[in-house]
Amino acid sequence: MSKGRLLYAQSGGVTAVINASASAVLAQARARRVPVLAGKNGILGVLREQLLDTSSISASEIKALAHTPGGAFGSCRYKLKSLEQDAAKYQRLLEVFKAHDIRYFLYNGGNDSADTALKISQLAQQSGYELTCVAVPKTVDNDLVLTDCCPGFGSAARYTAVSVMEAAIDVAAMAETSTKVFVYEVMGRHAGWLAAAAGLAGEGAKDAPHIILFPERAFDKAAFLAKVQDTVAKVGYCVVVVSEGVKTPDGNFLAQAEGSVDAFGHSQLGGVGPLLAGMVKDELGLKVHWAVPDYLQRSGRHLASQVDLDHALAVGKAAVELALAGNNGVMPAIVRTSDEPYRWHIDPVPLSRVANAEKKMPDGFIRKDGFGITAACRRYLSPLVQGAAPVPLAKNGLPSHLKLDLPMVRKRLKAWDK
Amino acid sequence: MSKGRLLYAQSGGVTAVINASASAVLAQARARRVPVLAGKNGILGVLREQLLDTSSISASEIKALAHTPGGAFGSCRYKLKSLEQDAAKYQRLLEVFKAHDIRYFLYNGGNDSADTALKISQLAQQSGYELTCVAVPKTVDNDLVLTDCCPGFGSAARYTAVSVMEAAIDVAAMAETSTKVFVYEVMGRHAGWLAAAAGLAGEGAKDAPHIILFPERAFDKAAFLAKVQDTVAKVGYCVVVVSEGVKTPDGNFLAQAEGSVDAFGHSQLGGVGPLLAGMVKDELGLKVHWAVPDYLQRSGRHLASQVDLDHALAVGKAAVELALAGNNGVMPAIVRTSDEPYRWHIDPVPLSRVANAEKKMPDGFIRKDGFGITAACRRYLSPLVQGAAPVPLAKNGLPSHLKLDLPMVRKRLKAWDK
Repeated sequence: MSKGRLLYAQSGGVTAVINASASAVLAQARARRVPVLAGKNGILGVLREQLLDTSSISASEIKALAHTPGGAFGSCRYKLKSLEQDAAKYQRLLEVFKAHDIRYFLYNGGNDSADTALKISQLAQQSGYELTCVAVPKTVDNDLVLTDCCPGFGSAARYTAVSVMEAAIDVAAMAETSTKVFVYEVMGRHAGWLAAAAGLAGEGAKDAPHIILFPERAFDKAAFLAKVQDTVAKVGYCVVVVSEGVKTPDGNFLAQAEGSVDAFGHSQLGGVGPLLAGMVKDELGLKVHWAVPDYLQRSGRHLASQVDLDHALAVGKAAVELALAGNNGVMPAIVRTSDEPYRWHIDPVPLSRVANAEKKMPDGFIRKDGFGITAACRRYLSPLVQGAAPVPLAKNGLPSHLKLDLPMVRKRLKAWDK
Repeated sequence: MSKGRLLYAQSGGVTAVINASASAVLAQARARRVPVLAGKNGILGVLREQLLDTSSISASEIKALAHTPGGAFGSCRYKLKSLEQDAAKYQRLLEVFKAHDIRYFLYNGGNDSADTALKISQLAQQSGYELTCVAVPKTVDNDLVLTDCCPGFGSAARYTAVSVMEAAIDVAAMAETSTKVFVYEVMGRHAGWLAAAAGLAGEGAKDAPHIILFPERAFDKAAFLAKVQDTVAKVGYCVVVVSEGVKTPDGNFLAQAEGSVDAFGHSQLGGVGPLLAGMVKDELGLKVHWAVPDYLQRSGRHLASQVDLDHALAVGKAAVELALAGNNGVMPAIVRTSDEPYRWHIDPVPLSRVANAEKKMPDGFIRKDGFGITAACRRYLSPLVQGAAPVPLAKNGLPSHLKLDLPMVRKRLKAWDK
């Protein structure tokens, strides 16, 4: 069964736990005595024949990989078109696979990566070259279909809930003579899962966040401002969580990246958070602060959830087993069988049904007024943020992360002529 | 010795550990059998005779207070003028002290609060009313003089170092096909201590952060852009940490709060981070992301340093002892006697020398090129971020925080006619 080599690569925005999946892939492949190569910077490294040799990684380093955020082998944003449109590139991939006796390809990413993996699985079938391609799920956006959740999301959700909770306590303490409205911007261009996770920060009617703005609901300026004013009147302050993807009623992003120019004539980059803050200040005359954690929320390994880490490890391990068993064109998905106690297992799903689909928040997860989450949403989210996944400290007192410096395997092909 | 009551109040921007000082004050005063009242929202609550009765707080709640961020009794930004200019207010304070037999007043805050405490200590002397006033240091800005560091700073420094470290790993993994420059904005309007703390994130020449911009150095646009470009060329990406207080050569803040208007005609609020990001994008054409953690950095109790927590507890305990011993007009300061192993103790310093002074970064802590910290700075900072101060988890899996709902003591005076 264990003929040839396994190639693993990371794709798209990295997360706090994508390296945990990598760690599980390495561990499981070793247990099965399959040599592992890693693509440098995802599929780009495969096209360039930049393949990292993982054999020098020690067992303790494999463990350390599991508590290191970011993408240890480098990731990329690089979308392949159809087999016909990008025929030369697929041909090149096939040559690289053949040259290095790669018989298993594991691509760790989100929607686009599932699509790439699907196409490579089809390429394998069409070409007659024996290759098994499996996608390993990962995205803080939680928008992959057919899996109950996506590894990476639980940790970003935990980051969001804890950060909003702590900041809200700060605002509450100072509200009488200082900031009355605090705006927190979360990632999630098309789906409001991370925005929803902020809802876990509070449970009571007066608890923050008082307003969550989802990309699934068109922004209603009047209703928003009325709710802010009402909350300040009743609670003394108002914490707003806004998804970067919130849109106007006509379907445009509320924050246009190129929307404004600062006093120096430079582009004022993005930020629906600062935009809403300006609106609140101008229209309601309230003192306002805003935060945009940006990459901090997806790389915050120090706040990773143990459940998310367990998921990330499980999909990595399962992907190796699925590949070795010859399951071409699948993705190990997380299947939930109980909310409380939380129970789950891994089942493979076909990539043809995963690629290019997008899971938005169901209507039943968004409160009728559009500004918060329902009890059903809370039941769904709560298990995913459970447990503080530990990170050992280095000698300098800060989290210990693994830094890999791997040799590249010798190239056997001509340079890639893209 | 233990006659009358002790009044404790919190002032200015709250921190991750100011409640730890409160916790120590409560514990120590109880050990000495001195009843403790707490001003609601700082000195404002004293003026309004809004005094919280802390006697119902249980011993376990006192412990929980030490791992709760924010200001449990409410804080305020409220500056009293001189004894002459604000004579009526000081008279009112004296009436409140007398009405409730307050013989010890502990004011927990930064520069302004030290000034208020100093004036109240003078008021006590002049009026002949027996009152001992002690300031308890606190500020994430670390800009109080005569103390080696300020409780609150070490935790915000740890938050900054860890966040920059994690985000930098994310950027490094994606740089080839995505973000090349990442800008992280830290608090510190006048002093660059928190910006400097980001320097702990990396040690090697190629490690992030590659550029730190301090308020102590005038912004040189050409030198900044050249350094960004050079770093991207050599390292592949560039992480910039900028203090909110960075100024132009003519002494104005680089980020003027009212500097721009967005596409909707609203104020584009602040953010030297997004401003620099726009500059990098426009002038160098590099893909850029930015983060502004704002209150997250000062309320991030989940990332508090154990050393900072120890300091916060120690100054709270010492303040009670100093007050009971009749040391009017002092502040317990942290005295460092050794960097490694880190050794320190508490000594009182006179408030007359603390109030209204500001400790900036010494020249020897900023690298000659102005873009980083020196080894001396690292030796100073490193002990302050040591140790992960634990936070127990609540049933919902998120950090457990104490919520106080204290009764107000019955008012004995007429309403304050401000």
